[in-house]
Amino acid sequence: MAGQIKTIYFGSDNQSGAHPDVIAAIARCAEGRVPAYGDDLLTRNVEEQINDIFETECETFLVATGTAANALILSAMCPPWGAIYSHADAHIINDENTAPELFGGGSRQVGIQGAFGKPSIECIEAAIASAIDNGVHSAKPAAISLTNATECGTCLLPDELARYGELAAKHGLGLHVDGARFSNALISTGATPAELTWKSGVDALSFGATKNGVLAAEAVVFFNRRFSEDFEYRRKRAGHLWSKHQFLAAQFNAFLNNDLWLKNAAHANAQAQRLAEGLAKVPGVQLPWPVEANEVFPILPPGLAEALAAEGFDFYSWPSMPGMVRFVTSFNTDPADVSALLEHIHRLAPRFS
Amino acid sequence: MAGQIKTIYFGSDNQSGAHPDVIAAIARCAEGRVPAYGDDLLTRNVEEQINDIFETECETFLVATGTAANALILSAMCPPWGAIYSHADAHIINDENTAPELFGGGSRQVGIQGAFGKPSIECIEAAIASAIDNGVHSAKPAAISLTNATECGTCLLPDELARYGELAAKHGLGLHVDGARFSNALISTGATPAELTWKSGVDALSFGATKNGVLAAEAVVFFNRRFSEDFEYRRKRAGHLWSKHQFLAAQFNAFLNNDLWLKNAAHANAQAQRLAEGLAKVPGVQLPWPVEANEVFPILPPGLAEALAAEGFDFYSWPSMPGMVRFVTSFNTDPADVSALLEHIHRLAPRFS
Amino acid sequence: MAGQIKTIYFGSDNQSGAHPDVIAAIARCAEGRVPAYGDDLLTRNVEEQINDIFETECETFLVATGTAANALILSAMCPPWGAIYSHADAHIINDENTAPELFGGGSRQVGIQGAFGKPSIECIEAAIASAIDNGVHSAKPAAISLTNATECGTCLLPDELARYGELAAKHGLGLHVDGARFSNALISTGATPAELTWKSGVDALSFGATKNGVLAAEAVVFFNRRFSEDFEYRRKRAGHLWSKHQFLAAQFNAFLNNDLWLKNAAHANAQAQRLAEGLAKVPGVQLPWPVEANEVFPILPPGLAEALAAEGFDFYSWPSMPGMVRFVTSFNTDPADVSALLEHIHRLAPRFS
Amino acid sequence: MAGQIKTIYFGSDNQSGAHPDVIAAIARCAEGRVPAYGDDLLTRNVEEQINDIFETECETFLVATGTAANALILSAMCPPWGAIYSHADAHIINDENTAPELFGGGSRQVGIQGAFGKPSIECIEAAIASAIDNGVHSAKPAAISLTNATECGTCLLPDELARYGELAAKHGLGLHVDGARFSNALISTGATPAELTWKSGVDALSFGATKNGVLAAEAVVFFNRRFSEDFEYRRKRAGHLWSKHQFLAAQFNAFLNNDLWLKNAAHANAQAQRLAEGLAKVPGVQLPWPVEANEVFPILPPGLAEALAAEGFDFYSWPSMPGMVRFVTSFNTDPADVSALLEHIHRLAPRFS
Repeated sequence: MAGQIKTIYFGSDNQSGAHPDVIAAIARCAEGRVPAYGDDLLTRNVEEQINDIFETECETFLVATGTAANALILSAMCPPWGAIYSHADAHIINDENTAPELFGGGSRQVGIQGAFGKPSIECIEAAIASAIDNGVHSAKPAAISLTNATECGTCLLPDELARYGELAAKHGLGLHVDGARFSNALISTGATPAELTWKSGVDALSFGATKNGVLAAEAVVFFNRRFSEDFEYRRKRAGHLWSKHQFLAAQFNAFLNNDLWLKNAAHANAQAQRLAEGLAKVPGVQLPWPVEANEVFPILPPGLAEALAAEGFDFYSWPSMPGMVRFVTSFNTDPADVSALLEHIHRLAPRFS
Repeated sequence: MAGQIKTIYFGSDNQSGAHPDVIAAIARCAEGRVPAYGDDLLTRNVEEQINDIFETECETFLVATGTAANALILSAMCPPWGAIYSHADAHIINDENTAPELFGGGSRQVGIQGAFGKPSIECIEAAIASAIDNGVHSAKPAAISLTNATECGTCLLPDELARYGELAAKHGLGLHVDGARFSNALISTGATPAELTWKSGVDALSFGATKNGVLAAEAVVFFNRRFSEDFEYRRKRAGHLWSKHQFLAAQFNAFLNNDLWLKNAAHANAQAQRLAEGLAKVPGVQLPWPVEANEVFPILPPGLAEALAAEGFDFYSWPSMPGMVRFVTSFNTDPADVSALLEHIHRLAPRFS
Repeated sequence: MAGQIKTIYFGSDNQSGAHPDVIAAIARCAEGRVPAYGDDLLTRNVEEQINDIFETECETFLVATGTAANALILSAMCPPWGAIYSHADAHIINDENTAPELFGGGSRQVGIQGAFGKPSIECIEAAIASAIDNGVHSAKPAAISLTNATECGTCLLPDELARYGELAAKHGLGLHVDGARFSNALISTGATPAELTWKSGVDALSFGATKNGVLAAEAVVFFNRRFSEDFEYRRKRAGHLWSKHQFLAAQFNAFLNNDLWLKNAAHANAQAQRLAEGLAKVPGVQLPWPVEANEVFPILPPGLAEALAAEGFDFYSWPSMPGMVRFVTSFNTDPADVSALLEHIHRLAPRFS
Repeated sequence: MAGQIKTIYFGSDNQSGAHPDVIAAIARCAEGRVPAYGDDLLTRNVEEQINDIFETECETFLVATGTAANALILSAMCPPWGAIYSHADAHIINDENTAPELFGGGSRQVGIQGAFGKPSIECIEAAIASAIDNGVHSAKPAAISLTNATECGTCLLPDELARYGELAAKHGLGLHVDGARFSNALISTGATPAELTWKSGVDALSFGATKNGVLAAEAVVFFNRRFSEDFEYRRKRAGHLWSKHQFLAAQFNAFLNNDLWLKNAAHANAQAQRLAEGLAKVPGVQLPWPVEANEVFPILPPGLAEALAAEGFDFYSWPSMPGMVRFVTSFNTDPADVSALLEHIHRLAPRFS
């Protein structure tokens, strides 16, 4: 009977709930009374935590969604007649509707090809040169936006980031990182937060927490004050300044306390590795992209995805390649669920090869 | 010593924390795994609760802030070349930066005078007539926005609302109610939710919960489907669709369960009444506006406000009249704090008269 | 018979055609072939003419309409979350639909009261103070926009302008002048173009030609380069960069050659003076505003306006005061038409007093 | 000596001046006085001419630039969260900065590949399917925009247009044609205006005149009233409603009178044909795209372009293919200039092969 099949979620890390530490922090916060709109001590505390983590004075603003963080940062980097260069598969192009255009006042997104979710430096250069050549008739080059970990589940290393940083500096562009899975990239690369951002020329980071254990909280972190002026006005007019702002701060505070963010990401990455290693042993299954964070993109033999779905596994088919699917692990992925998934695949795969 | 003075908050209902029932609901929700982006059972459940409360089929969308709710609804009612008529003191004009203009694509807000926070019907009619007369050169009349409870702490009764409803219908305008304190208006007027909305011609409501006991949740409720088409696109591109949407739903669900919203509002209103009654007995204190919800706007004798502030009371001076201040009570205002405030005023007032 | 009545136009200076010198310039231009998009010698020539006239290096951009000039300049002065202060009767508020909001990305216009079309300095200061006090919740003060000649047909003198200039400088705001009738103001005040602009603190001028003898051409003139950066992008994306740009330049060139603009304005002003002097002698007719440019705003006895209209005179009733109408003279107003209008009024007035 | 070389323009049809008939019409118009803002008989007359030409009741609006026409039409077809599909080389994507995004409130342009400037039907279908599948996370399919004549100098025939029309109808999208060179397409295809537009499912046309003999005038022509509602508000708030609107109408009236538009286009096309035929005989010169309108895109042997430029010929190098250049003929291209160009190429080509 269909009703008896329990769903096992590998669809996205945003299908997970929230970590008990985060709930406890919210509960403590609920009892108090504090000034509204971010004028509270917990918010100050989070700002200091972030300064410490990144080893520099940052300008930090909390919002509830990654789309808000990304689109608001880009609006601060890019004039309404400007162009933003990112990978053609970037979340800001494909999965955030027209948020960058809305907050940007009609700016233009330019999708750039590149292997493993990393936009080709040469292609960005060519696009910039073409726009400059066409002058006022083209959108003016304004920003480069990367995703780390990328949409392919790979990670950008500091020296890779630095090459984008040099390109951005050369043309006076802003450099943004969509870090919805920044924690996972950090664990994967072993780099420091500073190395993965401002030391490599990154001007602003969407520092994600939602996918890694909180309810709804992301930090907009500016390393370059050229772009943060008046940002509080941008946030307010977008409806993203919470009146009870302490509840955003409480989430982020708990997220950063006791290395919770790093532990959560380490767990998610480890489960993805287990899954990848298990899949590598299944005949007929290919893994075209290296598994470096908490996402696994195997190409399954025809029919296998449907069979897994019928047995209660929830995951997405992925349009990048025929037969590709995506499994995502999270801070609270049960290792037993990974084992169960691998067992099912091992058992079912022979039928479809 | 300054450090020993405990702050007693009457500044705003958004300085309060959150109700334990709401925290408990969030905690339960944190343990589960559900589909993202609102495709979960708790969200469905809230939609049904709202249909029941309003005795009609509504189109409901949850967001985290009142500014988002208001500005997104108005963007759905008003084309970018349209005009929105509201009281000159309305929150959407004075306290939400340019959110209505951002989401509305550059629409125009027109402030209308009127007593007790209620925009004059005659003045709205005159403004509409003038705009129609000026044709394409003027912003096109598109929407009327009311606040209930109003920015003066008064409430609009069903028959008052119906007069705005008739005016809106006559000119084909949308009628919106900013219900940041809708619960308080409901308790105050004794009307049903249906009577305070669609039965009086209201097309859409910003149904506030944040000020009345939750962390951050407001319901956009459409009674007229003419305006709700594609609203889910509006919400998404504004960055206001939560990925872990169940956490918005959990808050609203707890808010509506067991009449929590009504109990909370009744408590806040009762404390405001106590405060108003106490103030009425203080020589030299005036109350120019009736106290009908959870806000009290006395005019204090010169110097008294400063003396109260010095003793730890937090409240706003109010620009509407010289000497006016605002005290706001909330779902968890301690009656002892109201007593303390009144005692201080009784004690201090004679010094300043 | 109705068909026999010839319309005599006093409705607006934009009802007039164009001066023969302008047509001749266009005809010459039509024969040639030049680079497109403003990269031509005639455009360079106009830029130099404007530098000469204003005795300083300006940044000049030609567009076809006053609405484009005003709204584009304001978009360069005011961020999308900014506020623009102008007289409540200003053309940018009342007659340009929501153009400032469109090009400004949703900025806010704030109407300020003041006698004779001049916004009260004290009221602007109060509005700025209130906005600053409310911080991120209010639109941020960004620009002051004046009209010279004003919407009341009066003119701002250099020392009056300088007071707005000081206020703007004090708060870091931009100062814009809508000069749709700048030529008329110049003739009226006897000041130099420099005195009526940058010497009094004006940052940018919409220098109108359309109402004063050309087809469709206005110069955006920046005296302060802080606001002109990237303006060519603003113009292009608004569709206001003509491909055959030389036809805008040809108009402006002819307009400025041989003092045509000054002669045209002097004629229009003189006819308005004649009309005003004649009206002053008519019992029952009032002139509440001084006639300083080419607009005359008498209050006529009830019934007289309708009687004049019935005899073929075209003019607007004016909403500022009961019984007020507006007569506008232009570069090619026939003095005989002014005489005819005065004769009719003298003849008809006794019937309506 | 450089100074002695006369420039011979083949850079663009917008480098040409204007036809004497158009100038004569403007001169006549300059003498009169008429109501402003399009409330004049000449404007009515143009509307009727367009109804006649297209054999249906159209909604017509005149503006001064093609960018305005295109972007305003697309804003009427596409909500701010919508996607517009056009050829990746389309003028609206590559040469109009971010005008569609500005007027569209942040809508998204999606570039589609396709041979000869014609976007692939299959690729559009795939893009639509992907967007629908991704729901609220993607921009919503809203419009298809074609160019006729295309950016490759080819023309779309009625049956080709009809296939796009069927696709648009199937998904409820608007179908727009950028007809900056619509006259040239008409001459080339031999189809009627109706066949090239509404009979093939086209909802709106940017009917260009500027490139074909007028100063600055384009007609926005709606065949489907679903998209034309409130368009006059769109035009006004964009600053594109001329006060002396009769000067736009005079241009268009002269353009359509006596088949001037068709004669002009026939001349331009014929000169392009002569040029193409001549080029076909030059060894080493390739013509990868058929020459169907007034643009010729040869691939020249390395060095030849520079040699031609050195002898005074003005034209663009074209980025589509290595070695490609673009020659454009116009209504007043002197046949002797075409002969001269061909002679130079014949003479110079052997040196570079």
